[in-house]
Amino acid sequence: MPRYALTIEYDGGPFVGWQRQLNGASIQARLEDAVFAVNGARVVVHGAGRTDAGVHALGQVAHVDLVKDWPCDRLRDALNAHLKPDPIAICHVESVSLAFEARFSAIRRHYRYLIDNRRAPLTLTLGRAWHVKWSLDAQAMHEAAQSLLGRHDFTTFRASECQASSPIRTLERLDVRRSGERIEIDVSARSFLHNQVRSIAGSLEHVGSGKWRPADLIAALDARDRKRCGQVAPPQGLYLMAVDYS
Amino acid sequence: MPRYALTIEYDGGPFVGWQRQLNGASIQARLEDAVFAVNGARVVVHGAGRTDAGVHALGQVAHVDLVKDWPCDRLRDALNAHLKPDPIAICHVESVSLAFEARFSAIRRHYRYLIDNRRAPLTLTLGRAWHVKWSLDAQAMHEAAQSLLGRHDFTTFRASECQASSPIRTLERLDVRRSGERIEIDVSARSFLHNQVRSIAGSLEHVGSGKWRPADLIAALDARDRKRCGQVAPPQGLYLMAVDYS
Repeated sequence: MPRYALTIEYDGGPFVGWQRQLNGASIQARLEDAVFAVNGARVVVHGAGRTDAGVHALGQVAHVDLVKDWPCDRLRDALNAHLKPDPIAICHVESVSLAFEARFSAIRRHYRYLIDNRRAPLTLTLGRAWHVKWSLDAQAMHEAAQSLLGRHDFTTFRASECQASSPIRTLERLDVRRSGERIEIDVSARSFLHNQVRSIAGSLEHVGSGKWRPADLIAALDARDRKRCGQVAPPQGLYLMAVDYS
Repeated sequence: MPRYALTIEYDGGPFVGWQRQLNGASIQARLEDAVFAVNGARVVVHGAGRTDAGVHALGQVAHVDLVKDWPCDRLRDALNAHLKPDPIAICHVESVSLAFEARFSAIRRHYRYLIDNRRAPLTLTLGRAWHVKWSLDAQAMHEAAQSLLGRHDFTTFRASECQASSPIRTLERLDVRRSGERIEIDVSARSFLHNQVRSIAGSLEHVGSGKWRPADLIAALDARDRKRCGQVAPPQGLYLMAVDYS
């Protein structure tokens, strides 16, 4: 059973999320259907991260074991042909050893959260960013964000249904940058808790709007209490950008 | 009749183009409906440029004469409320003198043409860029493009139905730049012929793919013959970025 790593891009809008579910079309199920069509046998597509409903990806990674060997470019094109017309694309295919696991071999995940900060409704970026109509101070958001860097108990910024055994995570990067009306939040860590990025983005919005002082963000972290999370930012602003392997 | 200048953003995908037409919804007609709803009288919304079906705008400009005076921010919000749920947004409203004409006072128009140059299908940028699957040499495109700068007879790069009285135009800027899989073509001029930017982008694609040498682009221009145009690039890659006024 040769193993392949797939780099996958998708518009999360029409899907119930990465993971196969009974209540609608998932990205994983669509990929498994496409793999079945080219492979002739049903196999599981194992993703590096389970993105929620509406969350996008530019660089999701998954691995899959196939019945026979394929030239990587031919496998990519064959899968893409079977994914039409869904907004899911295989950007890259690589042959990997059986030691490679998309989820467990990952050493770092990179997410980006996009805010369109303007009064006017969104048109071209509708469903691609969080629309915040009141003015946000991105510099204040960035400065406050630095207090979340490093190793912390992120219970405050974790969904109540999160299944991770520990709430401890180590944030390696949390940058907030404005470019015109667009605010980009870049965050990197070995792994994340469920809803962690959206919980942090939602709380940073409180800092940017002036509802929270920087000390309120630190106090929320220190409280280790889900009820102290500012808010969970909506899914359409979130992108899984890349997954690193050693 | 106080006059207002509107800066308008839209996703051109669902529309038959800027101009009011009998065969479907136009951006102009939707704007005139929204203006009627707030103004109580039907007036014409005069645009700076008539974008074709499927062409987008980040900075279209139009002027309109209203029955009464409005605070600019209130007018913007009222129009946006009446434009819902269409992907058209009024980003800015300014009070202007009756000497201001969106089309005739313009001294420069800026367009951007986006190409996603990759093998994989488009997902998040579907309908927002031209998908070119074969590899393009953006540097070669940029160098060849410089021969189109300045004052020329652009008959080759003009739609047969173009209604301009003269085919002479002066290109002030034509830059081609690659950033990863994305190629951006930025073009500026006082005014453009019908389909001029898409005709130039389509012909530059021939240079980028190697089908044309740079000399072929110059020969096509010099021929002043519509049949010598390489191809007309599709509308979904084109954006009216901004219009300058003195």
